[in-house]
Amino acid sequence: MSLPPLSLSILGVEPLDEFIKEVADFIHHTIMKRPPEYPTGKVEVEAKIGVLRERGGNNRLFLPVLVETILRPDVECRFESNMQPQQHKHFNGLLNKLKITSSQPGYASSTPLEYSHLYLVDSFYPSESSESRDRIRVTRDEKTGNVIETMKKIRLGDLNVYSPQRGADWRISVNLEVPVQHPLGSAMHTRRKDRLSYTHEEFIIDLTQVTSTAGGNHEVLHELEVEIARPELLLATAAKRGDPNASEHERSAFDELIRAFVNNARILVRNSEPSG
Amino acid sequence: MSLPPLSLSILGVEPLDEFIKEVADFIHHTIMKRPPEYPTGKVEVEAKIGVLRERGGNNRLFLPVLVETILRPDVECRFESNMQPQQHKHFNGLLNKLKITSSQPGYASSTPLEYSHLYLVDSFYPSESSESRDRIRVTRDEKTGNVIETMKKIRLGDLNVYSPQRGADWRISVNLEVPVQHPLGSAMHTRRKDRLSYTHEEFIIDLTQVTSTAGGNHEVLHELEVEIARPELLLATAAKRGDPNASEHERSAFDELIRAFVNNARILVRNSEPSG
Repeated sequence: MSLPPLSLSILGVEPLDEFIKEVADFIHHTIMKRPPEYPTGKVEVEAKIGVLRERGGNNRLFLPVLVETILRPDVECRFESNMQPQQHKHFNGLLNKLKITSSQPGYASSTPLEYSHLYLVDSFYPSESSESRDRIRVTRDEKTGNVIETMKKIRLGDLNVYSPQRGADWRISVNLEVPVQHPLGSAMHTRRKDRLSYTHEEFIIDLTQVTSTAGGNHEVLHELEVEIARPELLLATAAKRGDPNASEHERSAFDELIRAFVNNARILVRNSEPSG
Repeated sequence: MSLPPLSLSILGVEPLDEFIKEVADFIHHTIMKRPPEYPTGKVEVEAKIGVLRERGGNNRLFLPVLVETILRPDVECRFESNMQPQQHKHFNGLLNKLKITSSQPGYASSTPLEYSHLYLVDSFYPSESSESRDRIRVTRDEKTGNVIETMKKIRLGDLNVYSPQRGADWRISVNLEVPVQHPLGSAMHTRRKDRLSYTHEEFIIDLTQVTSTAGGNHEVLHELEVEIARPELLLATAAKRGDPNASEHERSAFDELIRAFVNNARILVRNSEPSG
């Protein structure tokens, strides 16, 4: 007895994917309502892989659900953008392997990954205005000492994703990176970033070992982020989302971009090793 | 500026769908571990559309999540297989419309729906053994009085799905319907079922108005269920799931059947009207 061919559903289509729709709505809303006083600000959309922890405790957050889900913004928790060194190493192996196989002639599943190894130093300065909490970050190439970027990052919104079956949770963040003048005075603290940066189509995957130094103390964090590579493309597609005067391709481009972004974050989380 | 064609992900594939995998694992496990003492039992897998309520209260269950998710079995709640009459009417309109459009020549999205209107009467009797809690159900055609089925239903397991964006939640149930002798004595109570039964490929969608009578009291419930139509096909595909000696088609048939089953339940829930 064998299964005859099945339609996707009684309507012949897949049901709406609530998860991806929710992420797309959140990012779209956050982008369109961004504060107008920073016209030079660059919109950054990223997914960080880490762990959601109870506020005021060190336990991983617990909710009585069996599958990955998006938390309401009022859930009390904090996100730790960090993983165990062996998890980081596991991702490094995975991405390097993918870089090699995707570059081989005849590989048809996807576009090749590009790769670069960056050594960066961030120095943090107090904001120019005493009312603002937004610190200024100066990023230098560690080897040459050349300044790559001087900016302050303004957090616009976060969405937390709880992933009970995996060794990691994730957080989607929308920020505004505003270029500023190089600050005077001395840095409050610095951090060194040893970053493996993989580029695939419209996405950048950064695997970074961050060593922070403040008051003589060192802290090492292992971060993994997926970022939308071209803010100008993101904004162009967001502006046409659902526009009845745009072509079908233009109207749906934003949701397609977000779908691939969510798929990439999920692929990484699904492939994370258990922590601890 | 327009979006270039994107791969599904860095791996070129969609990430594993955790939700559908969890449902398939649950149903597979429940079927394979079913009690062997009922060899004549028919396996019933159904999704009921209704509302999850707090145990001991009448409020709809609340969890701090934004999208549909599967509850852990230890969440204290009860499932009410009922909806508002106007929600029921809405589904009736939707399914009738789909029946008409799907039967028109040139309709390509899916297979036509079949339809029948059933008037049934269930009578419930105590179980033959005094230890057993399983009542015996005798189902008759209301018009002719002919007995259609005499059986006891043994509940094997449930999975609750919380759907915070919609007017309804849902529950997946796996039961064993065991044929038994017609009981002696008189029925404890009866219920009348006015059922619109739609068949689409391997699924039956039952929209039923149930009028229960016990001790002179009447209660009317409005139910909606999706059921896998052929238990023997379900068991045949379950037996071959992941079998390395089976063909690729046979190995994946169970998961394909469950995917279409979940899609159909979701399409219904997504199209439910707000209650109240």
